[in-house]
Amino acid sequence: MKAPKTGVMLVGWGGNNGTTFTGGILANKHNITWHNKKGEQTPNYYGSITQASTTKIGCRGTEEVYLPLNKIMPFVDPNELVIGGWDISNMNLAQAMRRAEVLDYNLIEKLTPYMEKMVPLKAVYYKDFIAANQETRADNILNNANKMEDVEQIRKDIREFKKANDLDKVVILWTANTERFCKVEAGVHDTAENLMKAVENNHPEVSSSTIYAIASILENTTYINGSPQNTLVPGVIELAKKNDVFIVGDDFKSGQTKIKTALADFFINAGIKQESVVSYNHLGNNDGRNLSSEAQFKSKEISKKSCIDDILASNKVLFPHSIKIDHEIIIKYVPFTGDSKKAIDEYMSSIFLNGNHTLVLYNVCEDSLLAAPIILDLILIAEMFERIWYKIGDQKEFTRFNKVLSTLGYLCKAPLTDVDCPLVNSLGRQKEGLNNIFKACAGLHCDDNTLLEFKCPVQKQNDSKQTQENQQVSA
Amino acid sequence: MKAPKTGVMLVGWGGNNGTTFTGGILANKHNITWHNKKGEQTPNYYGSITQASTTKIGCRGTEEVYLPLNKIMPFVDPNELVIGGWDISNMNLAQAMRRAEVLDYNLIEKLTPYMEKMVPLKAVYYKDFIAANQETRADNILNNANKMEDVEQIRKDIREFKKANDLDKVVILWTANTERFCKVEAGVHDTAENLMKAVENNHPEVSSSTIYAIASILENTTYINGSPQNTLVPGVIELAKKNDVFIVGDDFKSGQTKIKTALADFFINAGIKQESVVSYNHLGNNDGRNLSSEAQFKSKEISKKSCIDDILASNKVLFPHSIKIDHEIIIKYVPFTGDSKKAIDEYMSSIFLNGNHTLVLYNVCEDSLLAAPIILDLILIAEMFERIWYKIGDQKEFTRFNKVLSTLGYLCKAPLTDVDCPLVNSLGRQKEGLNNIFKACAGLHCDDNTLLEFKCPVQKQNDSKQTQENQQVSA
Amino acid sequence: MKAPKTGVMLVGWGGNNGTTFTGGILANKHNITWHNKKGEQTPNYYGSITQASTTKIGCRGTEEVYLPLNKIMPFVDPNELVIGGWDISNMNLAQAMRRAEVLDYNLIEKLTPYMEKMVPLKAVYYKDFIAANQETRADNILNNANKMEDVEQIRKDIREFKKANDLDKVVILWTANTERFCKVEAGVHDTAENLMKAVENNHPEVSSSTIYAIASILENTTYINGSPQNTLVPGVIELAKKNDVFIVGDDFKSGQTKIKTALADFFINAGIKQESVVSYNHLGNNDGRNLSSEAQFKSKEISKKSCIDDILASNKVLFPHSIKIDHEIIIKYVPFTGDSKKAIDEYMSSIFLNGNHTLVLYNVCEDSLLAAPIILDLILIAEMFERIWYKIGDQKEFTRFNKVLSTLGYLCKAPLTDVDCPLVNSLGRQKEGLNNIFKACAGLHCDDNTLLEFKCPVQKQNDSKQTQENQQVSA
Amino acid sequence: MKAPKTGVMLVGWGGNNGTTFTGGILANKHNITWHNKKGEQTPNYYGSITQASTTKIGCRGTEEVYLPLNKIMPFVDPNELVIGGWDISNMNLAQAMRRAEVLDYNLIEKLTPYMEKMVPLKAVYYKDFIAANQETRADNILNNANKMEDVEQIRKDIREFKKANDLDKVVILWTANTERFCKVEAGVHDTAENLMKAVENNHPEVSSSTIYAIASILENTTYINGSPQNTLVPGVIELAKKNDVFIVGDDFKSGQTKIKTALADFFINAGIKQESVVSYNHLGNNDGRNLSSEAQFKSKEISKKSCIDDILASNKVLFPHSIKIDHEIIIKYVPFTGDSKKAIDEYMSSIFLNGNHTLVLYNVCEDSLLAAPIILDLILIAEMFERIWYKIGDQKEFTRFNKVLSTLGYLCKAPLTDVDCPLVNSLGRQKEGLNNIFKACAGLHCDDNTLLEFKCPVQKQNDSKQTQENQQVSA
Repeated sequence: MKAPKTGVMLVGWGGNNGTTFTGGILANKHNITWHNKKGEQTPNYYGSITQASTTKIGCRGTEEVYLPLNKIMPFVDPNELVIGGWDISNMNLAQAMRRAEVLDYNLIEKLTPYMEKMVPLKAVYYKDFIAANQETRADNILNNANKMEDVEQIRKDIREFKKANDLDKVVILWTANTERFCKVEAGVHDTAENLMKAVENNHPEVSSSTIYAIASILENTTYINGSPQNTLVPGVIELAKKNDVFIVGDDFKSGQTKIKTALADFFINAGIKQESVVSYNHLGNNDGRNLSSEAQFKSKEISKKSCIDDILASNKVLFPHSIKIDHEIIIKYVPFTGDSKKAIDEYMSSIFLNGNHTLVLYNVCEDSLLAAPIILDLILIAEMFERIWYKIGDQKEFTRFNKVLSTLGYLCKAPLTDVDCPLVNSLGRQKEGLNNIFKACAGLHCDDNTLLEFKCPVQKQNDSKQTQENQQVSA
Repeated sequence: MKAPKTGVMLVGWGGNNGTTFTGGILANKHNITWHNKKGEQTPNYYGSITQASTTKIGCRGTEEVYLPLNKIMPFVDPNELVIGGWDISNMNLAQAMRRAEVLDYNLIEKLTPYMEKMVPLKAVYYKDFIAANQETRADNILNNANKMEDVEQIRKDIREFKKANDLDKVVILWTANTERFCKVEAGVHDTAENLMKAVENNHPEVSSSTIYAIASILENTTYINGSPQNTLVPGVIELAKKNDVFIVGDDFKSGQTKIKTALADFFINAGIKQESVVSYNHLGNNDGRNLSSEAQFKSKEISKKSCIDDILASNKVLFPHSIKIDHEIIIKYVPFTGDSKKAIDEYMSSIFLNGNHTLVLYNVCEDSLLAAPIILDLILIAEMFERIWYKIGDQKEFTRFNKVLSTLGYLCKAPLTDVDCPLVNSLGRQKEGLNNIFKACAGLHCDDNTLLEFKCPVQKQNDSKQTQENQQVSA
Repeated sequence: MKAPKTGVMLVGWGGNNGTTFTGGILANKHNITWHNKKGEQTPNYYGSITQASTTKIGCRGTEEVYLPLNKIMPFVDPNELVIGGWDISNMNLAQAMRRAEVLDYNLIEKLTPYMEKMVPLKAVYYKDFIAANQETRADNILNNANKMEDVEQIRKDIREFKKANDLDKVVILWTANTERFCKVEAGVHDTAENLMKAVENNHPEVSSSTIYAIASILENTTYINGSPQNTLVPGVIELAKKNDVFIVGDDFKSGQTKIKTALADFFINAGIKQESVVSYNHLGNNDGRNLSSEAQFKSKEISKKSCIDDILASNKVLFPHSIKIDHEIIIKYVPFTGDSKKAIDEYMSSIFLNGNHTLVLYNVCEDSLLAAPIILDLILIAEMFERIWYKIGDQKEFTRFNKVLSTLGYLCKAPLTDVDCPLVNSLGRQKEGLNNIFKACAGLHCDDNTLLEFKCPVQKQNDSKQTQENQQVSA
Repeated sequence: MKAPKTGVMLVGWGGNNGTTFTGGILANKHNITWHNKKGEQTPNYYGSITQASTTKIGCRGTEEVYLPLNKIMPFVDPNELVIGGWDISNMNLAQAMRRAEVLDYNLIEKLTPYMEKMVPLKAVYYKDFIAANQETRADNILNNANKMEDVEQIRKDIREFKKANDLDKVVILWTANTERFCKVEAGVHDTAENLMKAVENNHPEVSSSTIYAIASILENTTYINGSPQNTLVPGVIELAKKNDVFIVGDDFKSGQTKIKTALADFFINAGIKQESVVSYNHLGNNDGRNLSSEAQFKSKEISKKSCIDDILASNKVLFPHSIKIDHEIIIKYVPFTGDSKKAIDEYMSSIFLNGNHTLVLYNVCEDSLLAAPIILDLILIAEMFERIWYKIGDQKEFTRFNKVLSTLGYLCKAPLTDVDCPLVNSLGRQKEGLNNIFKACAGLHCDDNTLLEFKCPVQKQNDSKQTQENQQVSA
C-alpha cells in the first residue's frame, strides 16, 4: 500500500515532451512560481487523470461525492519521481527546454539551475528508422558493434540509474521520435526467441525502440510506448509475458484523436450516422519535423486512422453492412506553429430523413503541455498495476493483470490489446473502465448512473448498487 | 408487454418541429422515397435513441454484442403513432410543412396528400407570454371567457382525439413557441390547489403552457415540455403526483447544449480546467423569430446556462472554491439562416502549467431534423415508463417511477428533477443511466466497462458482472 | 460594336462545370423557375463579373454612380451563346447533370428536356495524363492513329460546330480533368515548329490539352485553359502569336485561392507580416477524385502555391531578405462532400512587437456554382478582347493586345503572362486593372479613389482625374 | 519638408492601447530586445501603414518597384514622438502596462524603468457617459465646478506639455473608454456657438470627450477620436472649421470591421450577393468590461453596423431595391480572454442559381497590438496633412484639406465625413485613395493597374500613365 520509490527513464528525454514533463514536475516539487504577461503563475497538474480528475464514490444525502483518483488509490506522488533517460542529442535539459519553446520564459529561467546538470545518456540510434532530418541532432549516440551490445548497454543504464538513485523500481517510457513501422517478418519478430536471435544477428528490421523494450523487459521493468510505431511486435509481447513484465502502448492520446473518440461516442450513441471525418493537423515542433518524412507519417496515420472503427461497428442500425466512412488524416509540418499544434476536424453525418449535420472543430492543442500529464499518468497507473493482484473464484494464488495492459487505453491513440481482448477506443468507456477497476480495488461499487435510489419512491436506498440488485422490474 | 395503441398530441403542431415530426413519421410509415440533388432518398429514424442507437448487452466470445433499445424493450412502433394537436395558426399541415422550409421539396410534394387534411385544433393563446411578432400567425385561437374554460376545452380535445382514433393512451408534448417565464408566486403557483384556484380566477401569471399541462394531468396523460419556460411550476408537479401522471421537461437537448454537456465531461474527466464557454447561435426559423424578443430569450438563456454546473462542481481539484467560469449564451435571429441553425462555441481551458487550450466549434444543426427524433424518443420512452412497475426489497406492491421523470434528462437541456434527486447534465451519465434502467428491465446486467474477464488470466469469466462480483482485489 | 454570334466549345462538357454552365445558361435564357425547400427560385448570373459586378463611372453630385461591366462594354449576351463540346464520357448532358449532383432536383427535372439531346463529341484521351480512376468514364474517345489526326479531328469539329450553328466565332475552354504536368523538353515543346513536329511524331509528352490548344489556334479560335496543367507550353505560345490568336490561363480562380489573394493584399497592405498559410481542401466530386492521384495533385499544388509570392515580394519592409513563408496546400478526396468543396485556411502573421495574429477560415464553396460564372466571364471577356484594337502614340495601325491575355488574371489561379510582363496575383489589382481597361475603352477616366474633388475646399471639380492633374501640392 | 518636433497626448493614456503604444515606441526608440518562449525578440512597427506597408511607385524594366510610405513622404519619425496624456486612473505607466496584460513579461520588466515615472494628468470624468463598472478606476479626475473650467484645464495641460517638451506641435487622440452617445439636441450641439454656450452652462449632454475636442481645437491642435461615440457633433465640426483645425474619427478600424470591409469588396466585386453577416466578438480587457454596459455597447454597435452599406449600395444588380441584409453585431465581455479579442464572423451569400456560399472566420485579434500602430498612423498622417497645402486651377492661395479629414478612413471603423463628401468604407478604396494622395504629393503618378505598357505590343511605354493618356481604343 505504500508507494515505492520510483524512477522514470524517458527515451527522448531532451525532446519537447521530456523537458516539459521534467520541468513541470520540478516546478510542482519545488513549488516554483513564475510570471507571464497574465501575472504570477503557480504550478499545477492539470491534464492528469490521476492528479486532477475525480470519480463518484457515492452519495451523501442527495449530494454526489467525488474524489480524485490519487485519493482513492495510493499512487506514487509525482513530486517524488526520479527522472532520467536517453537522447540522441547531448544538450542538457535546460538548453533542451529552451530549444523546445514550450514553457514561459520566466519559468525557463527559474528551472534552469535545476535542469542544467541533467544530461541524457547516449541513445540507441538506427537512423534508418527516423526521418533523415533528425540526423543533425544525433550527437549523443551509442556506437556499439551490434544490437545485442545496445541491449546490454541499455540494461546497464537502467541498473545504474536504479542504483545511483536508490530506487525500488523504474518505468521506461518512449517519448522520442516516431519511427517508421518495422516490417514484421516470420522468423524475426514473431517469437521472443526469434527476436532475441535477430538482435544477436544485428537484423536490420529490429528498430531502436524494440531494443529499449527488450532491455526493459529483461530488467523486469514496465515499458510504455508513447509513439505510434510497432515497437511491441509479437516477439516483444511474448518476452513480456514470459518475464511477467507489463507493456503499454501505443501513442499518447492527447489531442485530436482524444476528442474524436469522444465525439464518435457522442454521435453514434445519439443514433446519428457519421459519414465523413476529415482530420487536418499542423505543428511546428520537432515531432512535426520528423513526421514530415513520409515513412514516419505512415506510422502516425495508421495509429490515428482506426480509432473510431469499433465505435461505428457497435451500431448495426446505422452501419448494417460496413463501417467504411470517409476518414482522412493529414499532418503537416509548419514551423511557425511551434508546439501549438492545430487540429482541425470536420465531421459530417446523416441525420433524420437524410439531412446533413456538419461539425467543424478548430483545436489549438499545446502539444507538449497536453502530453506531459499523460506521460505522468501512464507511468503512475502502470506502476500501480504492478501492485495490483487479484484472485478470481476459487483461484488459489493471487495473480497480476494480463501483461498487455490495455486498461490504459484512455491514454493511448491505438491501445495495444492482447489477441483475445476486445479493443475499446471509446473515450467514455475507457475512462469508466479504468475508474471502475480502481474503485473495485478500493472496495467501492461501480456506479450504474441510474440514480434509482432517488427515483423509486416509497423506500430510499443508500447505494445505487444495492438498489439495482434488489429491485424487481416488470415491464 | 404489448405496445398500446398510442396517440400524440403536439402543442404547436404546425410549427417546424411538428411538421417535420409528422412528415418524417409518415415518410417512414408509408415508406416514401424522394429525390434531392444527391439522388434517391429513403426515410430513416436517425437521431432517435430508441430506433437508431445501440447498447452493449454482452459478449459472444471476444466480440461485444450490441442491440438497439427498441429490440431490448417493447417500445411503441413509431409508425403506429396517431398524431394530432393544436396550433395558433390554422394552416393545414401540408402548408405548414412548406412554410417550415425544412424538408426536401420533392418530399414535401409527396407528403402533401397525406398532410393537407391534417388541421390543428384551436390553441390556447395568452399573447403576453410569447413574442409580439407571433401575433400575425395567431388566427386559430380559443376565445373562452376564462382560463378554466380553456382547461376544459383542452381536456375535451384530448378525450375526443382518443376516442376518434380508438387509442389506448395519449401523450401530450409542447413544441410550440418558447414562452417567457411566468413569475412564480406563493399562493398562485406553489400548490396544486392554489394553482387550480388561480386558473379559476383567470390569474394573468398562469401561462398557456401551464393550462395544457393541467389539462393533460387531469386527463391522466403524460405531459412533456419541449421548451425552456417554467410550465412545470410546483403546483403542476404536485398535481401530477396526486394524479399519478408523469411530467417531463424541460427543452429539447438537440444541438449546442447536447455537445456542451458531452464536452464538459470530456474536459473535466481529463483533468482539464474549463475557464470560459462562449456559445453563439443564430437561426432563421420561427423559433428564432420568437426568441428575438428579450423575455423569451431569457427563458432560453436560463435553460442553457446552468447545463454544465454540476459537471464542474464534481471536480474539486479543478474548482476548489467555486465553479464560476465565464459562460455566455447568445441567440440571434438571422432570417437567411432558416432552419439551419448555426451554433458556434469557444471553449477555453487551463492545462498543465497554466497553458491555454482553445477549442472552437462551428456546428451546422438542422434544427427541426435534430429535434424531431428527440420528440419521438421523449414520447416513446415516457410511454414506456408508464408500463414499468417496480418493487424494492420487501415492498408489497409494485410502484411506478417518481412522477418527475428525470431519467429523460439525456433528451432535455434543463432536466426537471424532483427536489431530492441529484441533477445530472453529463450526457454520458444520462445515456448510461437510461440504458441501464432498460437493461435492468430486460434482465441484463449493467456493463462496468472494465472488461476484466478478458484481462485477468487463468480463468475466463462469461460475464463482466460476475467477474466483478467474484473478484477479490488487493492493492 | 455589335456582339457577334458566338459559340462555346467546352473540353469536358459533361463534367460538373460543363453541365452547370450549360444548365445555368439555359435556365436564364428560358427563364426557368424551380422549387427547392426554400420556395420558388429564379435564375441569375451571380458570381459573374461581367453580369453582376459594378464599377464606378463617376459622380452625380455627391453620389457615386456605378454600372455593371455589361452596361459599359457591348459584351455578348450569355443567353445568346451556343454551347457544345467534347467529353470522354458519352452521357448526354441531362444524365451528366444528374450525375454531377450540383443543381436542385426540381431544376434538373425542368432542364432535362433541353439537355437530353445534347451529346458531347468524342474526346482526345491520352490516359497517361489523367488519373487512372477516370478510365471507367472513358467511353467516348477518339481512336486515331496519331496525334496529328487528333488535331485535325478537333479542327474539323470546330469548323462543323461553327457552320452548323451559323456562328461568327467560337471560343474553346478546357474544363476537363486536371492533367499531370507534361515534362517540357527542348526540341519538343520549346518552339511552334518543334511542337508541331512532336505532334506529327506522336511524341508521348504532348498532352491531350495541348492538342486542343493547337487545334484551336490553327482554327483562329481563342483557347482558355481552366485547369492547372502546363498546356500552354512555349511552343503553344509561339504558335498563338504567329496566328494572332489569344490564349488565356491557367486554372479558374474560384474559391480558396481567390480569397487568399484578397487576404494577402489585406495583410501586406496593412503592414502585417504573413508567416504561415495552411490551406486544406476536401471535395467529393470527380475533380476531387482525379486529384486524389499524386501526379494530378502536383499540377494543382503548383498552381495554388505561388499565388501570393508577388504580393509578399512587394513589401521589403516585412520581407527584407526573402519571401519564404510556410505555405502548405492539401487537397483530399472525400466523396461524401460532393460538389460542396470545403476550404479551410489558417493564416498566421506577426504583428506589432511580434505578437501573433491568427485567422482561420472555413469556406463552404459550391465548386461548380462558383466556377460556372467564371467560365462565362472568361469566354465573354476573351471574346471582347478580340474586338479591342488600340493605337499608341504615332503608331500607324491599330493593333490587338498581347496574345497572352494576362489581363484575365482575376479569373485565374496562376495567370499566364508573357515573359516580359509582371505577374500580378493581387485580387484587388487584377480587378482594378480589368475595370480600368474597359473604362478606358468606354472613354471613362480611371478612378484614383482620392475623392479630392470633395476634400479640397474653395473650388469643386467635376472630375477627380482633372483635380489631380491640375492640382499642385507642396509638402 | 522637415518633420516638426511633435508631441502626442492620449486621452486614456494608462489604458491597454495607451500603454502598448507608449511601450512599443520606447522599445523601438531604445532598441530594447527581450525574451519570450520563442527566443529573443526585437521590436518592430508591424501593423503601421506609414512604417511597414509599401506602395508601387513605378517599374524598373519589368520589375515593379515599391516603397514604404515613410520613404515617400517626410513623416515624423515615431521614435521622436514625445508622449503624454490623461487618465482617470492615477497608475503610472509601468503599473498600467502590467495591468494591461498585453506585452511579454520580460519586455514589461525592461520597459518598467522607462515608464514608471510617466504619470497621467488628471482626466475629465463625466461618469454618466461611461459604464458604471469603470468607477473603481476613477481616482485621478478633475474636480472643477463646471465644464468650461475643464476646457480651460485641458487647454492649459496642452500648452504646458508643449512648452515643457519644447514641441513644435501636439496631436490629441482619444483612446479612452467608449462613451455612450450623447443625445444631440438643437440649440446645444448644432453650432459652435451653441456648443460653447452649453459648455458654459454645464449642460449635462456635453460629454467628456467633447470637452477634449473643444480644448484641442481651441489650442489649434488636431483631434482624433479613436472610439465610436459621437464626440464630433456638428458644433465641434463647425468649431474646427472656424479654427482651421483637423478633426478625425471615428473608432480605430483594427480587427473585425477591417476585414469585413475588405471581404465586402471581395464579394460584391465578384458579383456575389451577401445575404447575412453575423459578427460575434468577445474580449476580456477593460474595453470589453466597459462595453458590457448596454449604452456603451450601443455606441460600438452603431459604429460597426453600417460599415458595408455603401459597398452593397454600389451594386444595383445584386441589390436592385434595398441593401437590407441580415447584419448582427454582438460583443461580450469574457474576462478570461484578456486582450486576445476573438472575432467570429459568418458570411452567407447567394451565388449562381441561388446556391449558398458560407464563409466562417475565427479571428484571434490581439486587440491592443493591432490598435497601437493604428494610433501611430493616425497621428503621423494627420500631422502630415497639417503640412500639405494645395492650389487648384487658378486658385491664388495655397489651401489645406477639408478640416474633416475623411482620408484617414482606412484607419477608422466609421469614417467621419463632411456633409457633401461620399462615405467610403471599402478598405481597398480607402488604402488606394490615401496612397494616391501621398503619391501625388511626391510627384508620382497614380497606378491604374492596367499594366498596359507591358500588354500593348509594338511600342513599349515607360509609364502606365502616359500609355493610358496616349492610347486610343476602339471597341
